[in-house]
Amino acid sequence: MIDLTLVGIGTGNPQHLTLQAVEALNGLELILIPNKGAGKDDLAGLRRDICKRVIKSPGPAIVEFDLPQRDPATPSYRQRVDDWHDAIAEVWQKTIDQHLPRGGKVGFLVWGDPSLYDSTMRIAARLQARTEVSLRVIPGITSIQALTASHAIPLNEIGDPVTITTGRQLREAGWPDSADTLVIMLDGDCSFQSIDPEGVQIWWAAYAGMENEISLSGALHEAGDEIIKVRAKARAEHGWIMDIYILRRPARR
Amino acid sequence: MIDLTLVGIGTGNPQHLTLQAVEALNGLELILIPNKGAGKDDLAGLRRDICKRVIKSPGPAIVEFDLPQRDPATPSYRQRVDDWHDAIAEVWQKTIDQHLPRGGKVGFLVWGDPSLYDSTMRIAARLQARTEVSLRVIPGITSIQALTASHAIPLNEIGDPVTITTGRQLREAGWPDSADTLVIMLDGDCSFQSIDPEGVQIWWAAYAGMENEISLSGALHEAGDEIIKVRAKARAEHGWIMDIYILRRPARR
Ligand SMILES: C[S@@+](CC[C@H](N)C(=O)[O-])C[C@H]1O[C@@H](n2cnc3c(N)ncnc32)[C@H](O)[C@@H]1O
Ligand SMILES: C[S@@+](CC[C@H](N)C(=O)[O-])C[C@H]1O[C@@H](n2cnc3c(N)ncnc32)[C@H](O)[C@@H]1O
Repeated sequence: MIDLTLVGIGTGNPQHLTLQAVEALNGLELILIPNKGAGKDDLAGLRRDICKRVIKSPGPAIVEFDLPQRDPATPSYRQRVDDWHDAIAEVWQKTIDQHLPRGGKVGFLVWGDPSLYDSTMRIAARLQARTEVSLRVIPGITSIQALTASHAIPLNEIGDPVTITTGRQLREAGWPDSADTLVIMLDGDCSFQSIDPEGVQIWWAAYAGMENEISLSGALHEAGDEIIKVRAKARAEHGWIMDIYILRRPARR
Repeated sequence: MIDLTLVGIGTGNPQHLTLQAVEALNGLELILIPNKGAGKDDLAGLRRDICKRVIKSPGPAIVEFDLPQRDPATPSYRQRVDDWHDAIAEVWQKTIDQHLPRGGKVGFLVWGDPSLYDSTMRIAARLQARTEVSLRVIPGITSIQALTASHAIPLNEIGDPVTITTGRQLREAGWPDSADTLVIMLDGDCSFQSIDPEGVQIWWAAYAGMENEISLSGALHEAGDEIIKVRAKARAEHGWIMDIYILRRPARR
């Protein structure tokens, strides 16, 4: 029996950890940290650092494992992701069997909140299909909260809706009817370029909540170009970037 | 000069506090706690309790103040809220002047995250119009995160949008076209009753993250009635309720 805890750790600031997360991490027997190989970002390093800061000895065993690669030969995107998640669940199971052969309390540190554009919960569901697993989720600060805190702005207009979506959706489906405020995540392409900037405001942040946080805001037709430049420069300097933004248009009512 | 910090405290579980929030609270000179009078919920009590748990002595002065009432004689809703926010900013200013006549570090404990359906930041903007104020926001766990953690579910389908909205919007505008996943907040009326339940799933939680958390989920046409009953009972028992839910319909693509 595996007692699996997914711990939301916030968006890169070790101080984003909640008291509940600290307690949960200290109550584990095994923490698994994925190694993405020589990658764009040293997230494994950050996870190790968080463990070092908050876990009291003796504490859980901390074990790194290599993430399998997606198979570029699989033509369908959904199938490729599905297969990849299966492969990860298999590696999880092997690593857990090796370190906790009789089962026990295992945990993962999940970036931001485990519910938001993250696959850890979906992989956990696959592990549940393979073996007996009880699942617990500890909420974490999301990059949306880190963004609004960085600009000290409300997310919504009073009583109004907000749509959270991706750069790809914005490019492909345009501004959705459902809301005058959008949060755009997972956008490697500054997809705000695909919409009519007339009357639109943007609040953008990269590395939100982290030491090297950058934030910019303004009318999209002016701030957009600046963001493209600053983003390219920061990405080149750090070797990786994570960014997120809010777009707001005047209410249509 | 007032150095104002709005500290997100999460949704009622003192363990939702982040390490950053604990540090920020301990760095203040004055904490203001609004007293809503004999109200539906004892949120002042919870805030006092959080301060007691995490603040090391000597620590900031903790001062309660009475929230002004909205004036029911003002006919327009927006005007009523506007006037009310002005009145609150005035009380903030008076209370701060009284306790920190030369200015200093003042803070508020804000339910959930300060950016999400909360007026504290808007009142702070009014205080900024009256006197010199620097504003800092510490992000907190939102009730959306508390809800998804309670059910151990992802918020979004892979790469798909999510719309956060209110009970009123759902009743008045129906299900928005652009997202198949909705988060409904600020709903005193179980507004899910206003939509066609065919194919819709619901994940509901009241007092999410708190000791008396209740969660229910299922097909809306079955779970809906159960939620209405359980909600009425819990509300009667506790004297107040806060609830939130996710609705999901099959993808239209
Ligand atoms: C795979 S998703 C994970 C989101 C995460 N679970 C959360 O709660 O924020 C990664 C996306 O989140 C956003 N993101 C995460 N951390 C960020 C940060 N520190 N600053 C800016 N954006 C961030 C970016 O849009 C990025 O493309
Ligand atoms: C005025 S809004 C404040 C939201 C808060 N700032 C946040 O980040 O969650 C109040 C609404 O939040 C939701 N809410 C807040 N705390 C909750 C809890 N513990 N359980 C369920 N819903 C909650 C309910 O929908 C409630 O009507």
